[in-house]
Amino acid sequence: MDPRADSPDDAGTLPHVLVLGGGFGGLWATRALAAAPVRITLVDRTNHHLFQPLLYQVATAGLSAPDVAAPLRHILRKQANATVRLDEVRAIDPHARRVALAQGQLHYDYLVVATGSTHAYFGHDEWAGFAPGLKTLDDALAIRTRVLSAFEAAEREDDPLQRAAWLNFVVIGGGPTGVELAGTLAEIARHTLPREFRRAEVRDARIHLVEAGPRVLAAMPEDLSEKTRQQLQRLGVQVHTGDAVTAIDAEGITLAGRRLASRTVLWAAGVAASPLGSQLGAPTDRAGRVLVAPDLSLPGHPEVLVIGDLASVTQDGKPVPGVAPAAKQMGAHAAAVIRDRLRGVAGEPFRYRDYGNLATIGRMAAVVHFGRLKLSGLLAWWFWLVAHLFFLIGFRNRIIVLTNWAWSYWTYQRHARIIVGRPPPDE
Amino acid sequence: MDPRADSPDDAGTLPHVLVLGGGFGGLWATRALAAAPVRITLVDRTNHHLFQPLLYQVATAGLSAPDVAAPLRHILRKQANATVRLDEVRAIDPHARRVALAQGQLHYDYLVVATGSTHAYFGHDEWAGFAPGLKTLDDALAIRTRVLSAFEAAEREDDPLQRAAWLNFVVIGGGPTGVELAGTLAEIARHTLPREFRRAEVRDARIHLVEAGPRVLAAMPEDLSEKTRQQLQRLGVQVHTGDAVTAIDAEGITLAGRRLASRTVLWAAGVAASPLGSQLGAPTDRAGRVLVAPDLSLPGHPEVLVIGDLASVTQDGKPVPGVAPAAKQMGAHAAAVIRDRLRGVAGEPFRYRDYGNLATIGRMAAVVHFGRLKLSGLLAWWFWLVAHLFFLIGFRNRIIVLTNWAWSYWTYQRHARIIVGRPPPDE
Repeated sequence: MDPRADSPDDAGTLPHVLVLGGGFGGLWATRALAAAPVRITLVDRTNHHLFQPLLYQVATAGLSAPDVAAPLRHILRKQANATVRLDEVRAIDPHARRVALAQGQLHYDYLVVATGSTHAYFGHDEWAGFAPGLKTLDDALAIRTRVLSAFEAAEREDDPLQRAAWLNFVVIGGGPTGVELAGTLAEIARHTLPREFRRAEVRDARIHLVEAGPRVLAAMPEDLSEKTRQQLQRLGVQVHTGDAVTAIDAEGITLAGRRLASRTVLWAAGVAASPLGSQLGAPTDRAGRVLVAPDLSLPGHPEVLVIGDLASVTQDGKPVPGVAPAAKQMGAHAAAVIRDRLRGVAGEPFRYRDYGNLATIGRMAAVVHFGRLKLSGLLAWWFWLVAHLFFLIGFRNRIIVLTNWAWSYWTYQRHARIIVGRPPPDE
Repeated sequence: MDPRADSPDDAGTLPHVLVLGGGFGGLWATRALAAAPVRITLVDRTNHHLFQPLLYQVATAGLSAPDVAAPLRHILRKQANATVRLDEVRAIDPHARRVALAQGQLHYDYLVVATGSTHAYFGHDEWAGFAPGLKTLDDALAIRTRVLSAFEAAEREDDPLQRAAWLNFVVIGGGPTGVELAGTLAEIARHTLPREFRRAEVRDARIHLVEAGPRVLAAMPEDLSEKTRQQLQRLGVQVHTGDAVTAIDAEGITLAGRRLASRTVLWAAGVAASPLGSQLGAPTDRAGRVLVAPDLSLPGHPEVLVIGDLASVTQDGKPVPGVAPAAKQMGAHAAAVIRDRLRGVAGEPFRYRDYGNLATIGRMAAVVHFGRLKLSGLLAWWFWLVAHLFFLIGFRNRIIVLTNWAWSYWTYQRHARIIVGRPPPDE
């Protein structure tokens, strides 16, 4: 027998639910099946659940990696019907009900595919090396190293033009991640670093936020987009809207036909669904997301549920957004569908409940849109902070993150300014 | 003019003190020159000062990297006569008073060489890949990934022999680092992880501590070595003394002619001085440390001071140990010698003041030897904790480290159990 096939102790009489991905969708699906008569295997290629809404804080040295992540095993330690497996999905075969992994294969009775999304460079994959995106902890640590190393290179550099290129930062994409990155970079350059550098004029650093569409935070009402632009400009960010980037290389970008010299370009513009979506044999949308049935199942395969950023769901003529609350709701719904199926009942259609939308901009500034409530500025920032702390998994994380926040607030310091790993080559 | 040579704004009428290395030696030398009429450049290849005594906690997932490190720029932000440069030393030319860096070169009037030590494999450099050592934050994160990945591999593994090899951990070297690593690994296997794994019997994990000499913690009095051995055994560590390792490969080690299967071998056995020592043209000892003059200067070069782990100093017939207090004292002494030279006075000879010796073993166990005071067990652990918190740089770090410690103590949890970077290949 192939030792990598399902092993004897994996077998059992209970139906096997295989969950691919330990993000908001997969983890919420797993937890919602805690009392169901199933055995669950949750597969992820990392050992942790990541609280992605705070990932930009790791990239900008405000938080440590373990502050925004918790081991999946630890989260699920008390859920006796769930097993966690650190492994990477290679292929899905819906007909044989089998998933090939890097280290073996697993059969399933029910499959929940929640492998999320990755960066997309709109057909310009060669930009990936020059403009890293932010999806994983490794991405965040790589961006942190790149940003901190740029200030160090500016301090070493004698040529004023080169020095300016090291102090020019470009963030591409005016969604929440782009706005958060740009606002925080401006805060670092204006407040955190200046006293510490002797030669580079860190206060002269330029932060450019580039959005091809007409406004930043396009998911927000227009007046909040405008407020966001004003708050960003007050922080010192140069906001470019309505112009697309046509080239990115190691020396900078081309924007609206003009060159902008920059040694640090960050990508927050496009996402594409995980490539596993295309293996399921169902139609996908332009971003590679699977067009699921109303109950989130794969058309023709009621035993396969596709959720989170990987699922393309339209509701009232609008796409359900790729945000954490939507993924959690889909996870819970997938679990409900599986419980229904186990009892021989058809699954209900999924309905997304939109509780609102919020984004932070920088020190003490945010925008919030909750139903008819619209907030901006300091009050929105407090709202944002409380909401994020509330949803952060793990009591300890909340205390530590709050402590770090208080520390940063009073001192302007960002404690995680530690370069690990090799910085990218300077020249 | 070569733009990488000293730039005009580096020039000045004040003597230029170049400090190589931002560890305890280099940083303490820099700080002790704060009021001296000199301009100082501190060069380090990382951007942070590392509190090495707690590095094993990063490797064993008890602390985050930023908890035990602080940016050198931040530490020195108020010291107007000091500039920090992130760069790597390539060569030292004592005759031309010039140091070649990866990104340029610098001239000096006084040079403080404090580049420390690295792992040594006693002529078996091929062991480095199988038995990583612990000197830098990158080392610590690589060890953390390796250790956590081994438990994950055991959980995936179906073959009992292979599973056992994944659950066998070997620590080579019975000094303080080896004792700390072995004790903490035992704590993780016994207390932190068992509830979270479903298939691997994590409690069956074996931790082996291998010391070629007759006893662990050889720098301690014999009775404390024996106490340490007993405490380690109580934690479940198998202590092997008096036997040398003769082979290390991906499958395990050979010890006293017998094979010990293990997929995770950690190296805490030998250190060698930084290779820069050999470039100074002075005699070195067997470990590559420079035999300095009584005032710590390089023989024949009173303007060059060699300090910390790179300096070989004998006092009362015994070598001054390579520990943090010795490096700090040498740093302060080097600064005093430079101040003397500036006034035309010869430097005093260095005298090491030995305040004692302490090591932690694991949860609530430590040994302390301070003058005539000998402690072991819980009281020693509290002593160790207070001493380490006291010496940790930065008020915030102390609070965070103490919080994490309290959390670990009450919950047995280690919050930083986050695998970042690619784990080593399984097979």
